[in-house]
Amino acid sequence: MFLPILCIFSLILSSHAAVQDFCVGDLAAPEGPAGYSCKKPAKVTVDDFVFSGLGMAGNTSNLIKAAVTPAFAPQFPGLNGLGLSIARLDLAVGGVVPMHTHPGGSEVLLVTQGAICAGFISSANTVYFKTLKKGDIMIFPQGLLHFQVNGAGIPSTAFVSFSSPQPGLQILDYALFANDLPTELVVQTTFLDAAVVKKLKAVLGGTN
Amino acid sequence: MFLPILCIFSLILSSHAAVQDFCVGDLAAPEGPAGYSCKKPAKVTVDDFVFSGLGMAGNTSNLIKAAVTPAFAPQFPGLNGLGLSIARLDLAVGGVVPMHTHPGGSEVLLVTQGAICAGFISSANTVYFKTLKKGDIMIFPQGLLHFQVNGAGIPSTAFVSFSSPQPGLQILDYALFANDLPTELVVQTTFLDAAVVKKLKAVLGGTN
Amino acid sequence: MFLPILCIFSLILSSHAAVQDFCVGDLAAPEGPAGYSCKKPAKVTVDDFVFSGLGMAGNTSNLIKAAVTPAFAPQFPGLNGLGLSIARLDLAVGGVVPMHTHPGGSEVLLVTQGAICAGFISSANTVYFKTLKKGDIMIFPQGLLHFQVNGAGIPSTAFVSFSSPQPGLQILDYALFANDLPTELVVQTTFLDAAVVKKLKAVLGGTN
Amino acid sequence: MFLPILCIFSLILSSHAAVQDFCVGDLAAPEGPAGYSCKKPAKVTVDDFVFSGLGMAGNTSNLIKAAVTPAFAPQFPGLNGLGLSIARLDLAVGGVVPMHTHPGGSEVLLVTQGAICAGFISSANTVYFKTLKKGDIMIFPQGLLHFQVNGAGIPSTAFVSFSSPQPGLQILDYALFANDLPTELVVQTTFLDAAVVKKLKAVLGGTN
Amino acid sequence: MFLPILCIFSLILSSHAAVQDFCVGDLAAPEGPAGYSCKKPAKVTVDDFVFSGLGMAGNTSNLIKAAVTPAFAPQFPGLNGLGLSIARLDLAVGGVVPMHTHPGGSEVLLVTQGAICAGFISSANTVYFKTLKKGDIMIFPQGLLHFQVNGAGIPSTAFVSFSSPQPGLQILDYALFANDLPTELVVQTTFLDAAVVKKLKAVLGGTN
Amino acid sequence: MFLPILCIFSLILSSHAAVQDFCVGDLAAPEGPAGYSCKKPAKVTVDDFVFSGLGMAGNTSNLIKAAVTPAFAPQFPGLNGLGLSIARLDLAVGGVVPMHTHPGGSEVLLVTQGAICAGFISSANTVYFKTLKKGDIMIFPQGLLHFQVNGAGIPSTAFVSFSSPQPGLQILDYALFANDLPTELVVQTTFLDAAVVKKLKAVLGGTN
Repeated sequence: MFLPILCIFSLILSSHAAVQDFCVGDLAAPEGPAGYSCKKPAKVTVDDFVFSGLGMAGNTSNLIKAAVTPAFAPQFPGLNGLGLSIARLDLAVGGVVPMHTHPGGSEVLLVTQGAICAGFISSANTVYFKTLKKGDIMIFPQGLLHFQVNGAGIPSTAFVSFSSPQPGLQILDYALFANDLPTELVVQTTFLDAAVVKKLKAVLGGTN
Repeated sequence: MFLPILCIFSLILSSHAAVQDFCVGDLAAPEGPAGYSCKKPAKVTVDDFVFSGLGMAGNTSNLIKAAVTPAFAPQFPGLNGLGLSIARLDLAVGGVVPMHTHPGGSEVLLVTQGAICAGFISSANTVYFKTLKKGDIMIFPQGLLHFQVNGAGIPSTAFVSFSSPQPGLQILDYALFANDLPTELVVQTTFLDAAVVKKLKAVLGGTN
Repeated sequence: MFLPILCIFSLILSSHAAVQDFCVGDLAAPEGPAGYSCKKPAKVTVDDFVFSGLGMAGNTSNLIKAAVTPAFAPQFPGLNGLGLSIARLDLAVGGVVPMHTHPGGSEVLLVTQGAICAGFISSANTVYFKTLKKGDIMIFPQGLLHFQVNGAGIPSTAFVSFSSPQPGLQILDYALFANDLPTELVVQTTFLDAAVVKKLKAVLGGTN
Repeated sequence: MFLPILCIFSLILSSHAAVQDFCVGDLAAPEGPAGYSCKKPAKVTVDDFVFSGLGMAGNTSNLIKAAVTPAFAPQFPGLNGLGLSIARLDLAVGGVVPMHTHPGGSEVLLVTQGAICAGFISSANTVYFKTLKKGDIMIFPQGLLHFQVNGAGIPSTAFVSFSSPQPGLQILDYALFANDLPTELVVQTTFLDAAVVKKLKAVLGGTN
Repeated sequence: MFLPILCIFSLILSSHAAVQDFCVGDLAAPEGPAGYSCKKPAKVTVDDFVFSGLGMAGNTSNLIKAAVTPAFAPQFPGLNGLGLSIARLDLAVGGVVPMHTHPGGSEVLLVTQGAICAGFISSANTVYFKTLKKGDIMIFPQGLLHFQVNGAGIPSTAFVSFSSPQPGLQILDYALFANDLPTELVVQTTFLDAAVVKKLKAVLGGTN
Repeated sequence: MFLPILCIFSLILSSHAAVQDFCVGDLAAPEGPAGYSCKKPAKVTVDDFVFSGLGMAGNTSNLIKAAVTPAFAPQFPGLNGLGLSIARLDLAVGGVVPMHTHPGGSEVLLVTQGAICAGFISSANTVYFKTLKKGDIMIFPQGLLHFQVNGAGIPSTAFVSFSSPQPGLQILDYALFANDLPTELVVQTTFLDAAVVKKLKAVLGGTN
């Protein structure tokens, strides 16, 4: 008896093509400035919206004793076009996430285990840092240098949220010492001695 | 004599490819978070910018005695990327557009015939409603539940404008009762009795 | 019995200050690049979302036999921050809305009475124009020169929607001839003869 | 010896006023469509960027056995203008976050304890739901109806991130039954019987 | 010894596909409302970010004694999606850039040689103009009519920056007189006499 | 005779309050996430849109032999809300703009005198650099580390455009060594030796 209601909105609802609630990324199709092309809505399932990779600690058996596990759009295409993403951060005792920036998004860090000393430096060159305990959250505004250091005697974990599905990540030491940027240019533009630069390039796999 | 002016700007104007005044949607090409791919400008004609489907009343011979005729980007691809769209609303005597939201855009409704009782509910849970007469306009902010009911003894018509070419439409009863969402979950998340849910599912074609 | 639910979300819902579903413009407070300051939510009523000024035809007893009645954010502050606005256009027989642009938004025109010949010119210098009948809609992309001319033997009416609460309006003849822009500069930058410029300045109230 | 470098950029760096890395909200100053006015940068400290309210479980001693603790811009003004926010969700055994929407942002939910059955309904009326275990994340696109139900025999916790500092929250039962929206209008726009509406209004504190 | 750091971020850094710092335009692939599709990052070289076309003066041997050389996204695809572009402007003695608008972006002009008299007209019909000397910069807000005239006895040069990679360009005389817009419509919408229109159409290559 | 046209649009044009073509910053009024409050349009003059501070070379008599002269919104409030800004860069022989980022905008550099070796490093850790000659332009995407070094035997000059009125500036050495960030944290987060850090802190005026 009520069924005729089905007809009324049929023009709108008859086809998935009419809907852009979401745009699950199709990593094989063209990418544009706003993100990946959309997977056809008819092929989207709940699994496009669920990601299980953040449940386990990353491997911190490395020199910085830290691991970052991202769920950005390339890893979790359901986030494409939705304006946010997330990652897991594990810090063993003594672990450090070295000085870095996210060129494309602001960050909020939530400590879920242990304690973390975290900070950032503003364009006005002011330093803001604090040791965060479990349950604390801290903001790192877009594009500013920041860092996280384990501030507890136990392994610490945090989850970080970003205001972009692709916030990017530029790790300072990587950018300076782990590529083919000529030593001379690093010296000229950082005031570091060539010997310091060469030593770090050797350690981090940089050339030139 | 004046013709050399033609040369000056030729680098800019020699090719349609240099222009992005508009991006008429090519529904067959990849879609991205910002909308459809653009039809080649050289193939665009005035008819891509004109739509004639809103001239006639929709068919209100149904139980809710209402009809919505959209001119969103999927129906009118010339709107793609331009940040607005429009639709026609017809309400027979006793007609109702049930409680619904537009997840992707704000709305302005203009009454062009009859009278309409319309309202919305804010995040702060305040209700704003009023009976609008011919020529009145009313705002429905993005994503909030709202409704329209014929407020006259005669058929009423309105045109609604949206701040997005794809504002979306989620009709509450549809979302709850006209799909395969398990009755148990509807009951748990709405405080409605299972009997009420089952009855409405039967009427609206829902399952589970 | 169910009342405790009221407590759960009280942190969110206890105060209107926590909500920014809308930002009704306070025309007396500071304005910023994103629009007017918001009226306090507690003082907002349904009348902030309803505007009745478009119900009557504007006065077309003038030389261009046309009238534009805007409901932009300055006239209808409820639109502030919501990304759209609307206006009414009345064209008597022989009426013309002269060549103009909206620097801040795209437009969709809906003919509700009579017929209107409307068109725009693209950056690629292509002309798109057509005579629209009642119920037709036409798009005018942001910032492009466009015009509307009564295309019927009877008065015609249209409602125009914009993708901005403050789309702006620059009428070509006004910009060139109805202010104190020196005749010499108009001549140099338009290729019109000084005599033509001076004549139109006289008619439209321009000086210099 | 190196000190003259200090002078070079002094024009830029001499004043906090020159910097807009962040805009910590001043809740007492005018609010606009883009958010709150900014606290003077010189008065900003690290505590403006740190929030400690999410460390404890909310009180779930209520009928829905659930608690939501937001860190949106009104609670955590450091987020103002930065495009994201976060909240904590606690679900006792049998706990439910009833059907709701966030009109202003997309959401990502991260389960940190227990298990949660969560889902949303699209504009195309498709249901996407799944039981999430610890470490799983799930997306809820902007403005769509969604819900979370404890899916474990133990208390469950989640942290939810949003793509806006003020995503808003509209709880369906609240919007329909916990305000002064007339019963008659609820009946007309939801297809529920008046008796059902009146019963829920009584439970949830609604009038009319 | 330090090499294990390389592993930590390998999930993020192992693939160019994970990065959207930039989106160099692929002019042969689909274009969308946000710009061109991106060239594969692996194929991007420094030459995609460098453009050498603005080093020479444009050819001003024409009636308006002016030349505009754009580096917009179509000429310099590295700008795609980055929100800005640039162009060179050469004005011989007596040179004029006629009245025009950029529908898609605001402009800043920098005089690098000679002097330029430049101005714009606002929506409120106020004229703002001034003679700029070498080193001066002037703003032209988006979509407003503006012009530049050589203000020196020597050739003048300027570089203009835009807030969009594709700001567009609509030259008033071109739009009115250099296409097939019927003379009658130009007359009706500009208040110019048919004789004036026909004469300028003849000069500028317009028809109808 | 034509004067009645003046009345038609009077509702729109009668008041400067109806116009938001621009929002010249009022540095004394509240600032929000979108920028400064607007100066009253009636008080705006052409001088609000013209800035003369870039005509002279900055003082390069310092150790890095470089000077940056910004025309960002704080120096040139006419740019407020318009999405772009500009600065002048002077490099004496041997001059260097050290490694830095702009957290809030992309940059295009135009060489107007001499030659400049410039480069940036992407999130994927690829280095893009080149020696630019007079007339060349180069792109530096938002938030990425980049540098400029005089590449000629003569003083060099460039003008840089940004996609934001407040792009920000974070100079790496400043951020690490010219504030009170504890040496221990710098060491932990950069892999530099404490001795190197302390030496640079001494030179650049840092403490702790």
